[in-house]
Amino acid sequence: MNGGIGLDRLSLNQATVKRLGLRDAVALCVRHDIPAIGLWRDRVAEAGLADAAAAVRAAGLRVSSLCRGGFFTVADPDGRRAALADNLAAVEEAAELGTGTLVLVCGGLPPGQRDLGLARRMIEDAIAALVPAALRCGVRLGIEALHPMFCADRCVISSLGEAVDLALLFPADAVGVVVDTYHIWWDARLADEIARAGRRIVSFQVCDWVLPLPADTLLGRGHLGDGCIDFGAIAAAVAAAGYSGDVEVEIFNEQVWDAPADQTAATVRERFAQVLGAGAGRRRPG
Amino acid sequence: MNGGIGLDRLSLNQATVKRLGLRDAVALCVRHDIPAIGLWRDRVAEAGLADAAAAVRAAGLRVSSLCRGGFFTVADPDGRRAALADNLAAVEEAAELGTGTLVLVCGGLPPGQRDLGLARRMIEDAIAALVPAALRCGVRLGIEALHPMFCADRCVISSLGEAVDLALLFPADAVGVVVDTYHIWWDARLADEIARAGRRIVSFQVCDWVLPLPADTLLGRGHLGDGCIDFGAIAAAVAAAGYSGDVEVEIFNEQVWDAPADQTAATVRERFAQVLGAGAGRRRPG
Repeated sequence: MNGGIGLDRLSLNQATVKRLGLRDAVALCVRHDIPAIGLWRDRVAEAGLADAAAAVRAAGLRVSSLCRGGFFTVADPDGRRAALADNLAAVEEAAELGTGTLVLVCGGLPPGQRDLGLARRMIEDAIAALVPAALRCGVRLGIEALHPMFCADRCVISSLGEAVDLALLFPADAVGVVVDTYHIWWDARLADEIARAGRRIVSFQVCDWVLPLPADTLLGRGHLGDGCIDFGAIAAAVAAAGYSGDVEVEIFNEQVWDAPADQTAATVRERFAQVLGAGAGRRRPG
Repeated sequence: MNGGIGLDRLSLNQATVKRLGLRDAVALCVRHDIPAIGLWRDRVAEAGLADAAAAVRAAGLRVSSLCRGGFFTVADPDGRRAALADNLAAVEEAAELGTGTLVLVCGGLPPGQRDLGLARRMIEDAIAALVPAALRCGVRLGIEALHPMFCADRCVISSLGEAVDLALLFPADAVGVVVDTYHIWWDARLADEIARAGRRIVSFQVCDWVLPLPADTLLGRGHLGDGCIDFGAIAAAVAAAGYSGDVEVEIFNEQVWDAPADQTAATVRERFAQVLGAGAGRRRPG
């Protein structure tokens, strides 16, 4: 009944092994037969852009995405110009790293502001300004809806539907959406919005919603199967929408970060197969 | 430009002064010229239903709502029957207390379950079973969308649109929706959904979204003006939808609870006038 997602589409997002530098993360993927990696700009910068690109290529890994651009909602014009410049650099870095996707966390309300509409217009304007570079570099900007609990301080794009509405304003070759289970699993309209996203889906990220939320709500994510997300239904909708790319496991969690990286990578692989693989549902953990 | 909401529509939800028993909360409202109160079932039970009703009547207060029914998403049929019986009792209590609104917090995923659709069907079935009692008692069931961060454990109805979809399945005299700013302020489609709710709005609750979220995310609410919600825009949409009833200030916050109740009531009144009153926007705090 369920074709599932093969391990040949597994990508380890670097944030899942946050303590590792880029070379160690690449080596970890190779050791655990994980064919793709999602990179973070700070770790790329630390390794050096050209060296990072060479290391990933030498290891034979695909780069499923670069995290991340965004944070466009800055009240003063100088700040907005700086954000734009930084995002233009990120587009070029993505191209040099050989990935077609730059993930955008678009930004929350500017400090002291309450106007969501204004913040959303700042985002639209910034993306419009990035489109030419994205087209030139062959990199698609992936608008990520963040969970509404991050609306005030991190991203005013709070539902997949809103991300799709925004992406559709721009050419499909330049702007798409990120489907991240953690942020959108609760949405009663999710299946329809995934279908509407269609070929605009440029990244599929997975991790589980685990209770209780930790004191730092950014770090509440869990390994697949440890929480309450029905991954099978979401994965089926994403497949039906036409997405057949890499699937990134991205887990922000202090305990996961404290675990030995090899243990984390093994768990990521095992759970991916159990929860998303062929026949998933019959033998899920939990 | 802004007609605003007069203090004659202010209601103090009992949860804002959680440490007070019913009689003390009633006396507080009288002292602070607050004309309405939102009651909680535990405090009503503690005072005795008939005595509670008599105390509120004698004080000349309106009861804007009774909190709360719901928690319908129980895996075993006996548990579901018990929830239904409890909710039938709550409908009758609401009628005896003289309020036309019973607020419903519908329930999260049953423990160990991941099927949001199943949980939502349990809620629909339970509401259907309550409709005859609601009509007979002249009490409307107010479906409250809770913030998506509570989807797993408290309420799988996570957006106003979803609450409206559900309410529209039932007679308008029996089922409506609660608009609570804390839970839905982030929603890009909020204005449209409030318009669609129209006369189905049976309660309007207000409090602010304050960062950082506390360790217990249930308790992160703030006095109007202390956070980042744009109350004016939401209040205008609610007014345009046709709602002209009481407006409940409902704040779950450990520090607010620890403050002297008279200070809390004074702040509630002052902020209500500043943030929601005529001319609000020119002289908002913060």
